[in-house]
Amino acid sequence: MNDFFHSLFEPRRIALIGASADEKKTTARPQRFLRKHGFAGEILPVNPGRSEIMGEKAYKTLDAIPGEIDHAYILLNGKDAVAALAACGKRGVKVASILAGGFADAGAAGASLQDDLARIVRETGIRLVGPNSIGTVSSDPPMALTANAAFAVDKLRAGTWGLVSQSGSLIGALLSRADARGIGFSRLISVGNEVDLAVGEIADLLVDDPKTRAILLFMETLRDGERLAQAARRAHAAGKPVIAYKLGRSAIGQELAKSHTGAIAGSDATFDAFCRRHGISRVSMFESLVDVPALLVDRPPIHQSGVRGKRVAVATTTGGGAAMVVDNMAMAGLDIADPPQALVDWLRPLGIAAGEGKLVDLTLAGAKPEIVAGTIERLLADDGNDAAIFVVGSSAQFNPELAVEPLLKFAQSAKPFAVSLTPSAEKSLALLTAAGVPAFRHPESCAEAMALCLLRPSPQPVPALASPARAALDALAAGRVSGFDERRAADFFAALGVPVAKAMAIPDAKRIVAAVTEIGGPVALKILSADIAHKTEAGGVALGLPDGQTAAVAAREIEKRVKAHMPNARLEGFLVQKMERGGLAEVILGFRRDPLVGPTITVGLGGVLAEIYKDAATRLAPVDESEARQMIEEVKGLATIRGYRNLPRGDVDALARAIAAFSALAHEAFADIAEAEINPLLVKADGQGVVAVDGLVIVG
Amino acid sequence: MNDFFHSLFEPRRIALIGASADEKKTTARPQRFLRKHGFAGEILPVNPGRSEIMGEKAYKTLDAIPGEIDHAYILLNGKDAVAALAACGKRGVKVASILAGGFADAGAAGASLQDDLARIVRETGIRLVGPNSIGTVSSDPPMALTANAAFAVDKLRAGTWGLVSQSGSLIGALLSRADARGIGFSRLISVGNEVDLAVGEIADLLVDDPKTRAILLFMETLRDGERLAQAARRAHAAGKPVIAYKLGRSAIGQELAKSHTGAIAGSDATFDAFCRRHGISRVSMFESLVDVPALLVDRPPIHQSGVRGKRVAVATTTGGGAAMVVDNMAMAGLDIADPPQALVDWLRPLGIAAGEGKLVDLTLAGAKPEIVAGTIERLLADDGNDAAIFVVGSSAQFNPELAVEPLLKFAQSAKPFAVSLTPSAEKSLALLTAAGVPAFRHPESCAEAMALCLLRPSPQPVPALASPARAALDALAAGRVSGFDERRAADFFAALGVPVAKAMAIPDAKRIVAAVTEIGGPVALKILSADIAHKTEAGGVALGLPDGQTAAVAAREIEKRVKAHMPNARLEGFLVQKMERGGLAEVILGFRRDPLVGPTITVGLGGVLAEIYKDAATRLAPVDESEARQMIEEVKGLATIRGYRNLPRGDVDALARAIAAFSALAHEAFADIAEAEINPLLVKADGQGVVAVDGLVIVG
Repeated sequence: MNDFFHSLFEPRRIALIGASADEKKTTARPQRFLRKHGFAGEILPVNPGRSEIMGEKAYKTLDAIPGEIDHAYILLNGKDAVAALAACGKRGVKVASILAGGFADAGAAGASLQDDLARIVRETGIRLVGPNSIGTVSSDPPMALTANAAFAVDKLRAGTWGLVSQSGSLIGALLSRADARGIGFSRLISVGNEVDLAVGEIADLLVDDPKTRAILLFMETLRDGERLAQAARRAHAAGKPVIAYKLGRSAIGQELAKSHTGAIAGSDATFDAFCRRHGISRVSMFESLVDVPALLVDRPPIHQSGVRGKRVAVATTTGGGAAMVVDNMAMAGLDIADPPQALVDWLRPLGIAAGEGKLVDLTLAGAKPEIVAGTIERLLADDGNDAAIFVVGSSAQFNPELAVEPLLKFAQSAKPFAVSLTPSAEKSLALLTAAGVPAFRHPESCAEAMALCLLRPSPQPVPALASPARAALDALAAGRVSGFDERRAADFFAALGVPVAKAMAIPDAKRIVAAVTEIGGPVALKILSADIAHKTEAGGVALGLPDGQTAAVAAREIEKRVKAHMPNARLEGFLVQKMERGGLAEVILGFRRDPLVGPTITVGLGGVLAEIYKDAATRLAPVDESEARQMIEEVKGLATIRGYRNLPRGDVDALARAIAAFSALAHEAFADIAEAEINPLLVKADGQGVVAVDGLVIVG
Repeated sequence: MNDFFHSLFEPRRIALIGASADEKKTTARPQRFLRKHGFAGEILPVNPGRSEIMGEKAYKTLDAIPGEIDHAYILLNGKDAVAALAACGKRGVKVASILAGGFADAGAAGASLQDDLARIVRETGIRLVGPNSIGTVSSDPPMALTANAAFAVDKLRAGTWGLVSQSGSLIGALLSRADARGIGFSRLISVGNEVDLAVGEIADLLVDDPKTRAILLFMETLRDGERLAQAARRAHAAGKPVIAYKLGRSAIGQELAKSHTGAIAGSDATFDAFCRRHGISRVSMFESLVDVPALLVDRPPIHQSGVRGKRVAVATTTGGGAAMVVDNMAMAGLDIADPPQALVDWLRPLGIAAGEGKLVDLTLAGAKPEIVAGTIERLLADDGNDAAIFVVGSSAQFNPELAVEPLLKFAQSAKPFAVSLTPSAEKSLALLTAAGVPAFRHPESCAEAMALCLLRPSPQPVPALASPARAALDALAAGRVSGFDERRAADFFAALGVPVAKAMAIPDAKRIVAAVTEIGGPVALKILSADIAHKTEAGGVALGLPDGQTAAVAAREIEKRVKAHMPNARLEGFLVQKMERGGLAEVILGFRRDPLVGPTITVGLGGVLAEIYKDAATRLAPVDESEARQMIEEVKGLATIRGYRNLPRGDVDALARAIAAFSALAHEAFADIAEAEINPLLVKADGQGVVAVDGLVIVG
């Protein structure tokens, strides 16, 4: 661990700038909590009006403190906080945290103050937590450098999970919820406005922290995506799960994030794509953030562990309680494993007919330790399942010795094993948690945890992008100069490697017969003019023209209509385009740069129904063909070309190639392309390829 | 309250048949729990080997007990239980409960024993709870007639919610979960296999129970739907919410219910339709069953209360915590109300800029009682919202006096008001609960409760059905005799009042020119033959025939093909059907009898995409035109005919009329129709009607 890590999480000398001697004040809390929870280092309060605070020697100024300072917590507001940070930077304090809000979270004046903070960081090299950080805490050795009222708890429980939160108050909520069920944290840090240190860099530090085995994130936005991506990949390699709860799943929630904290929420689908790409487990229930880690710690995702399936064996002393867990697991995409024959045979003499249903219901035999243990042993030894869950009924409340204590010895099972408690049974929960058996209070979070345990992907490789073809760069350059009309967009997509409908631009109607002869009818005809945005409305389009003659007539009519409609538009000729037929499906490909996660690609079914059903798959761009194929699988409506109900199969391979080629827009050579879309891309029968019919490119 | 109610929930003399003197045995529990929780009546243990059990005089036989017996709990198994029930029936015991399972829940042998129980009930008039009932409990006066280990609690908490459960063990789970947060029940009853008394009848009793203000149901199946429907409607009239959790939301869950308990799960959509029709609030989280009632009690659904909207005002001392509640509410379909100007003005001098976001975040002012109370007062007084939520942060954990105690006085607010606690804060939860303020531990269940509070419908009227038209009965009779081929199905649907494509049946190809002339081309031609199920495969169909001549040629070809394909099929002529054009959408109408809820109707979009997206609305049949219109609104893909994106509007009125007419299949005159389908029903442009093109009727 480096020096910076120690200054942040294990400092020996801490300055409290603006510490109050009034114990009731928020600014008195850091000193109180440091002492209360047994901080063994030096506390150095700075207060111009005091020579002593709560029994510690106080200093009038920061500079009056002799020696090195590892970490300074600045408890002043606004300009005073800025000045304090400058003083810290000047005298070489290694890490400073700022408690106050009122910076970028509070409009323009605050934003300018925040710029001052950023400048000081840049100029002095000091590392900054916040502003708007409610503090940084380590449990072992204890270091509760925080103003968070939640740390008024009697005892700071030690633990092995690190929590990084953009919301300060949620630190307290999670601390209390975890503490109530016997779980502690290794580190807790509120990163606030993230002027310098952001979620990603902190997560990256925790990957190397020997005291942290799981990294939990409470997020409102994402400010250092690349760093977080790197941290998640390193965490995966180190066997530490990264588990995130992120606000903004609803449109209102996204708007709220924006209006309330000034944070940009991004779209929910793109954050999901980010998590998927980099192997972050995203949870949907708040409680899951403290419930889920136990089942993921030391259990690598499916691809590495050799665990191949999603079949969960379930045994129980409460049929109804287990049915709830099963119902939720099935909705999350898990299967239920049949009980192994060895178990069926073993239970039969005990009067339990386990073979009939899918659950092993021990209710009839009563909750007996030897039966419970014997059942779990046989389930865990069976190749027919990939994980096991035991659902405990009422006995968990008053008689943990019956069906809970016999479970404790399975804490080190090679296979994922979890316990779901149907009643409120705090003692049993504590027993299981202390023994290291993942235990759940809610059927919903138990199911969510098991689904993440078995179904979460490992980080996916980021496909390497070759240098773009000369033709693509030329087409981009041409588009930059003259704008991307149909012709230039098509040229560009073709240069990227996406098959496009055969087309020719001709300067006037005279060349049209030759063009149709070359392309082959039927053709579509479109007026070319930078002045006409809506060509169909201006009468500038004709479709389905079978031959050159008809096309020539149509061209003259188009000219007439367009001149009548927009007499001043400069006409640049016509685009003659082959009318493509034989498409089994129309697909939309979209590329855009998300403000949080960067380049993304979306594949959806074309047409109004697909739009209504919002049926699309989104990934970080670029994607390779294998990931493109996963996207195709994910778009429900593309079942029509995947062999659904004897419908003819479409050319899925060609589609995957086109998606991968289109996703190369993520290359930095194309950095000024804000958005691009191909709509529709026709997918023909298997072996006959795909063809882009229309598209647009937005530079900006 | 009638005598039967008293015998069930407030008996004075209770016989325990098969009571054990061994305190460790399950069969000793009822006596222990009755005494432990202060039952004031007489306990009459029956045990042939004892004259005294746990201090009570014991009887060798039931008949040895003098005087009337209100309630007998039979603690024997199998045939002994049957014999005991017979003895109870014979001597006029008013209500008996049976603890043992092993009846219909345990295969054929058990089912036959269960038939014996049903017969005794029928013959003697005794009322039976179970078998497989873990007991019946009242809290005031206390009467814990149960073998459920969960009642080993020290104190049976009184309350005003009645719980009816098909799962015995879940009674204990809910008791402990409610107790942990300071909530008690008026009654708890495990109905087991429901040979006699089922969920519906018990719920109906609770409607008239002055000690019960909310009725909670834990359901695995539905055995007395009509009775439950009646109970739910009466409960609504009495101002008592009925709140149900039902297993079987996933396909695996449905299968499990079937294989495990022998219960039929039905489809989840039809149970939802049942709840909607009869005004039952269905919850999706288990914890919601104890969390949600507080917000619904004394708050009639939207239609009756005059509350018109779904705008929820949110104030908080934790921005992140409130954002979680908002995110979940938005996903549940609620809107967030802007803060009222009066509040914005009041908060400004306190340094809180409430107008900027949608939340009122008091964090900057700190959690102060007068600010919290003043905020809630102003929110509740505002016409711009329909309900309010306060989300409390860390202060709830250690300082309830700051932001929790000032909320207590809003318990009787005219407008729905709920509190969501972000940390684990048991003391605050207990305070709020005791004061009658609905309080929530999870943002998810808070959102679910508020959505039910504002969005749940009142019971919908069951449309009256006129006697079916003579023509419909004649068509049905004809179909019964000869089977429903295309022609007869079309005649039947037409007689119900659904417009069908013009068609004629002709005995042979000679009449075809005249038929086409009468109908008007283009036509479709189909061979008529009861022997040919798959007409297209047999070459028996020709489409798009423009005139009589072409049709005559096609008819001869059809005859040739069919004779070659199926030489022995008896041919009965042809159906000549008008080819309908101009459909803006193809709709499927389905009618079926659900094993649990009875006749249902489903409206979906036709075509393969709609099938893939499972885009359909289901209701109990019959529906009137207004409910049919709601169904049309609910089918997402029908947006295409509702004026989406300037697409031409379809004839939604005609579609609603057709749905309502089709749903008249629920009339008892059609009781032998198991299933019917119209596919497709073409919806034409507004004012141009709908027309059924094909359909089938299954009698059986």
